[in-house]
Amino acid sequence: MFNKPKGTRDFKPTEMKKRRIIENKLREVFERYNFKEICTPTFESFELLSKKTGEEIRKQLFVFKDHGNREMGLRPEMTSSVVRFYINELKNLPKPIKLYYFSNCFRYENPQAGRYREFWQMGCELIGSAYPISDAEIINLAMDGLENINMDYEIHIGHLGILKGIFSFFNVNEDEELKIRRLIDKEDYNGLKEYLSTLNNKKDGNVMEDIIFQLLDFKGDRDIINEVEYLLKDFPKSLDSLNNLRDILDFVKYENITINFGIARGLDYYTGMVFEIYGTKEGARQVCGGGRYDNLIELFGGQKVPAVGFAYGFDRIMLNIDDFEVEEDSILVVPVQRDKELIKECIKIGDKLRRVDKIVELELMNRRLNKALDYANTVGIKKVIIVGKRELENNTVILKNMETGEQKVVSIDDLERTV
Amino acid sequence: MFNKPKGTRDFKPTEMKKRRIIENKLREVFERYNFKEICTPTFESFELLSKKTGEEIRKQLFVFKDHGNREMGLRPEMTSSVVRFYINELKNLPKPIKLYYFSNCFRYENPQAGRYREFWQMGCELIGSAYPISDAEIINLAMDGLENINMDYEIHIGHLGILKGIFSFFNVNEDEELKIRRLIDKEDYNGLKEYLSTLNNKKDGNVMEDIIFQLLDFKGDRDIINEVEYLLKDFPKSLDSLNNLRDILDFVKYENITINFGIARGLDYYTGMVFEIYGTKEGARQVCGGGRYDNLIELFGGQKVPAVGFAYGFDRIMLNIDDFEVEEDSILVVPVQRDKELIKECIKIGDKLRRVDKIVELELMNRRLNKALDYANTVGIKKVIIVGKRELENNTVILKNMETGEQKVVSIDDLERTV
Repeated sequence: MFNKPKGTRDFKPTEMKKRRIIENKLREVFERYNFKEICTPTFESFELLSKKTGEEIRKQLFVFKDHGNREMGLRPEMTSSVVRFYINELKNLPKPIKLYYFSNCFRYENPQAGRYREFWQMGCELIGSAYPISDAEIINLAMDGLENINMDYEIHIGHLGILKGIFSFFNVNEDEELKIRRLIDKEDYNGLKEYLSTLNNKKDGNVMEDIIFQLLDFKGDRDIINEVEYLLKDFPKSLDSLNNLRDILDFVKYENITINFGIARGLDYYTGMVFEIYGTKEGARQVCGGGRYDNLIELFGGQKVPAVGFAYGFDRIMLNIDDFEVEEDSILVVPVQRDKELIKECIKIGDKLRRVDKIVELELMNRRLNKALDYANTVGIKKVIIVGKRELENNTVILKNMETGEQKVVSIDDLERTV
Repeated sequence: MFNKPKGTRDFKPTEMKKRRIIENKLREVFERYNFKEICTPTFESFELLSKKTGEEIRKQLFVFKDHGNREMGLRPEMTSSVVRFYINELKNLPKPIKLYYFSNCFRYENPQAGRYREFWQMGCELIGSAYPISDAEIINLAMDGLENINMDYEIHIGHLGILKGIFSFFNVNEDEELKIRRLIDKEDYNGLKEYLSTLNNKKDGNVMEDIIFQLLDFKGDRDIINEVEYLLKDFPKSLDSLNNLRDILDFVKYENITINFGIARGLDYYTGMVFEIYGTKEGARQVCGGGRYDNLIELFGGQKVPAVGFAYGFDRIMLNIDDFEVEEDSILVVPVQRDKELIKECIKIGDKLRRVDKIVELELMNRRLNKALDYANTVGIKKVIIVGKRELENNTVILKNMETGEQKVVSIDDLERTV
């Protein structure tokens, strides 16, 4: 017997229906913000995928050679592809460019709750604006989406510019910066302490380790921004970033946010405001991540263009919403006997009802009437139309309500309205 | 600069919008027939994918090893995956089981019109019924879909049982059968003649080559079925299949069909009724293929269960429909000056309108009013709401119609209705 590959999933009809409902509710919000959907290839050159995604993700790439011996990989995230597409074909569109996608991505994960080797991301990229209102638009959109599906969540917003201001003051190089950011991202504070002590950065009476750990301690509502100001007084670039964060937050329409300077994001390419959203259900906590990446397009060979975006982890969102019932209202059309002419009448009636957008099943198993009614009961079909010769002579059929058991004779001409 | 992989595509917003519109119109029809959507992994074990897809497709597989050294491939079509899923998890559902999918598939094709290395298939499988009405249901569904998108098409319906009856009479083995079917499928009649002459099958005064070439000559409307009967008089299995085809056609609700005994299908697994649909535009002719496959589930390790299905080549459908305009009705909200409080009012107004499902852009580039109006003109935004301090004092804004140039002062409270 064949099995699906490890870490992947098959989605059954009911599950798929729920996923589509949630997808469409999120899509609705993206469209209201006038973001436009795009689609890029499922695989990309290894070179592109490995350029800026971070070491950890690089190790998880599914890599293969195409028949022309070019090294390819299944995309582990979408931002690299969107940026490539932008540089290749979209760069001359009027700014800002507002794009969204709903795409499957692939990582060689160890299977665990909420982590799959094929998973879905829904996200957006706003390209061309460096103004705080564009950061806010992205945060508002991310929150509006989750509001639209009634999901409980917590949002943490930070700013990498604050850390970067400290790094630049202490002459921390790029490799060191990435190492520090990864330790912060993983909340590995022992590892962080150890690593910072090896750097031993001191300057003008400031000790980097102290500053960073104090900074990480600030976490709370908007007032934190004023409170942290004194800590950053010697770091002008950090203060600029703090002001930028303040300006952004002025445009965020929700109050229930947490300022958290420990948001460092696993992906290397973020440069400014960063945020993460967590679900409140057990397991699979992070459901969304995003932020500003003003250097990535240039790094990928385009002009320097500011950009900001986010992605929902769609599978994690599905784990975080309350389960719901999907209402179905389908009709079964059955001939009263196994008779070719009656079956043809069933097909005609089915056709008539499908044309007015009713969900109609025909009896495809050649079952006798009572077996067909059993089937309708089993699969939850609520109405059965029984087609018999005698009724047909009067241009009528029998309509049976499976919930009440009630039967009535109805005119075929009125069927679109009575069913 | 990075490029997309050869043979793949990026879809721009307008193209993607059109694809979604067509996808949803097809989906609508599948749902009306009470087919339920499923989703399976993008890659599968090489073993599964190579089992029954046919030599040609096997050569075009994208193959890779996962980190556990298991050989995987990107799916080249969906039926194998659906059958695997059915055997793994769906086999105990009440019959018939009616599934549909909209999925990307992958083949290493030489790029040409309508052939891509990543392409989309939308299709369905009806599992559990061997009755002619289920074949007809599948044909009716395939035709209804194309009717729903107003595509011009031609449908050719045949029956592999007729050829198989001839093969069995002449003791043609499985390898020989597949070879003959592929030559027929490619319409390589010289190759076919040559190959049949090497087999040299004669029995009871019948010559296989003659019979097959006469059979292939029959092509036309439903009457053909009666005309071909004499040719098959010595092949009882072929006559059974002809009667099966006649029964199926009795339940097909459209008249514009062509009977074509030369439909042999490239995939090895079909056993009974087969059909192909062609678009009428230049290039990318075949847009749909399907048929009955009663042995496949057993071959894959399940019980013997009859099944019938089809798939649209979605990209080819897109090439075959007339281009159409996508109407957009979006609103831009702009502050009359660069003022933080005014921007905040813009955000509030945007929020209010988005809540009633309007498509709203905020001014994210910090442009002056006249530049913002230029932008609106360029991207085709039809209404601009101008937010100024003086108007706000009266709880009003200015609404500018970009098509007529007309401006009027409107109350913010009425905005949901007046915009």
